[in-house]
Amino acid sequence: MSELRTIAEDGDGVVILDQTRLPAQTAFVRLATLDATARAIRVMQVRGAPLIGATAAYGVALALGEGIALEQAIDVLAATRPTAVNLRWALERMRRVLQTTPGAERCQRAWEEARAIADEDAEANAAIGRNGLPLLQIVEHRPVRVMTHCNAGWLATVAHGTALAPIYAAQAADDEVYVWVSETRPRNQGLLTAWELRQAGIPHALIADNAAGLLIMQGKVDLVIVGADRIAANGDTANKVGTYLKALAAREHGVPFYVAAPVSTVDFACPDGAAIPIEERDAAEFGLASGEQSGDEAGRKVSHGDTPIANPAFDITPAGLITGIITERGILPPTGLAALQR
Amino acid sequence: MSELRTIAEDGDGVVILDQTRLPAQTAFVRLATLDATARAIRVMQVRGAPLIGATAAYGVALALGEGIALEQAIDVLAATRPTAVNLRWALERMRRVLQTTPGAERCQRAWEEARAIADEDAEANAAIGRNGLPLLQIVEHRPVRVMTHCNAGWLATVAHGTALAPIYAAQAADDEVYVWVSETRPRNQGLLTAWELRQAGIPHALIADNAAGLLIMQGKVDLVIVGADRIAANGDTANKVGTYLKALAAREHGVPFYVAAPVSTVDFACPDGAAIPIEERDAAEFGLASGEQSGDEAGRKVSHGDTPIANPAFDITPAGLITGIITERGILPPTGLAALQR
Repeated sequence: MSELRTIAEDGDGVVILDQTRLPAQTAFVRLATLDATARAIRVMQVRGAPLIGATAAYGVALALGEGIALEQAIDVLAATRPTAVNLRWALERMRRVLQTTPGAERCQRAWEEARAIADEDAEANAAIGRNGLPLLQIVEHRPVRVMTHCNAGWLATVAHGTALAPIYAAQAADDEVYVWVSETRPRNQGLLTAWELRQAGIPHALIADNAAGLLIMQGKVDLVIVGADRIAANGDTANKVGTYLKALAAREHGVPFYVAAPVSTVDFACPDGAAIPIEERDAAEFGLASGEQSGDEAGRKVSHGDTPIANPAFDITPAGLITGIITERGILPPTGLAALQR
Repeated sequence: MSELRTIAEDGDGVVILDQTRLPAQTAFVRLATLDATARAIRVMQVRGAPLIGATAAYGVALALGEGIALEQAIDVLAATRPTAVNLRWALERMRRVLQTTPGAERCQRAWEEARAIADEDAEANAAIGRNGLPLLQIVEHRPVRVMTHCNAGWLATVAHGTALAPIYAAQAADDEVYVWVSETRPRNQGLLTAWELRQAGIPHALIADNAAGLLIMQGKVDLVIVGADRIAANGDTANKVGTYLKALAAREHGVPFYVAAPVSTVDFACPDGAAIPIEERDAAEFGLASGEQSGDEAGRKVSHGDTPIANPAFDITPAGLITGIITERGILPPTGLAALQR
């Protein structure tokens, strides 16, 4: 499996792939400050729960380099996005390591820990790919047809992806895969997934989110795999809005529905889905396709000036609709997450 | 209730409101030939099952005026859209009346029958509004919150609308209504609904189709009302793609799910949903918002050149998910449609 990375160190900064420009443009942005890092997370230049976590960890290192206090840096970064728990997880890990590190060594230690978080994410996702691969080896003499939602590919992580990791693993194993890519309004992250799959040479089709129910009813989907932004202790899972509708349709037609996520996405402090905060994003984003910036012509065309818009970014899929959770430590039933807690 | 009409006679032609230009522009198009009428239906300048039927009836009258044979005209019009049964129903009604009409009187008789079809549609929809009104009078001291999909307002009919008719009736009765308007990708007909509601002064919010499950789960929806393109004899209903996902979510949370349609939308010859043809529309339309024409900049941005796209326009909601069907002859259980057949 190739290892395309979304974030890389560059001297005393980090370089990220600007995901608001994709797929129209492949543009890189260098982050050298806390503020630039917080903004990159907020405006979704980096996105995807695992990548948000790793980027925030580097943000702490950058902040310390600027002479900003640790707790202040953590506060600024924690406020960027409310739903993805990997953000909070990465910041807490940085705090735990750094608060016992002498001041003179802190900055270097922060870089080391951020690097460890990034490397571990890449490794965890490669393991998710290996663990999920057998789930795709369920048909013979034709490609297995996987439906996904949003982008949980390598773009959403440091490397390899979560939901797409088993698909990349299947390709590496010479197994045929066909992917139904849901557009994922309002931010159209499905276009990022289509871009990844085209680059990888994996057959796929883009569909309107609305088409998922029909395709599942028609027997054209063998399994669904999605990522996660936060998994509650009971297995309820927050993921990009629209995930829940796919889970309902999958259950209705006996199609397996898997969540793929590193263990860092499990929030053991969160009892169930009702306790997960759902981010409401700005109405102005509603009219934007990926690769466009706010306020342009196409944006105005879709959002129509003063039309009131409700724009929740996530929804909750109850554990009862989830067949299994694919982690770097194996595939678990959604009710069996306690085994992961040491 | 005001009676805004989507189609009107104009000398030896008809004038339609060009719905591909809405909501950005209110533009009218005059149709004077069979070909122009067939094209208007195909490219969705007129859309919505009841309006397609009435427009096709006028298309027959226009064709006879051009000296085109009745059967040829019917064939051309029947081929424009496969799913909406009102098209076939209107053409069969025209055939039945005209094939026994002497040649010299045919053209005049065709205009009379098309006018009757249009007037009856307006009357039927007004009755749907009256019949559906009590379904909205279920809460006190706050607005009733209705979710709809696509556009089944007056724009989708000759007048009054189907799914929106009870909402307009509630407004006329001084009952407070709040409407969740689903964007309805890929053609964004939700923007037409938002445009209608804004003009009528009815509070509403536009949402991504993906948000429907979350809002229903959160208890923010009192009932769902959608239109229909074809209702099979057993109550299975074809409507704009995405309807099925809303029906699944509504059932999951005990939210009533109603279909509103004139009796002309019921296809007694069609035993069940599996027998309803699902139109696959051109991939190029995928990137278009309402009010845009094919091939423009925004279209290319969303569809990304050579990305493969699957674009089914309708899905099937099984009768078991439908609480009731609101017709001009009353509200029927989906399994009780036989009572309508004389």
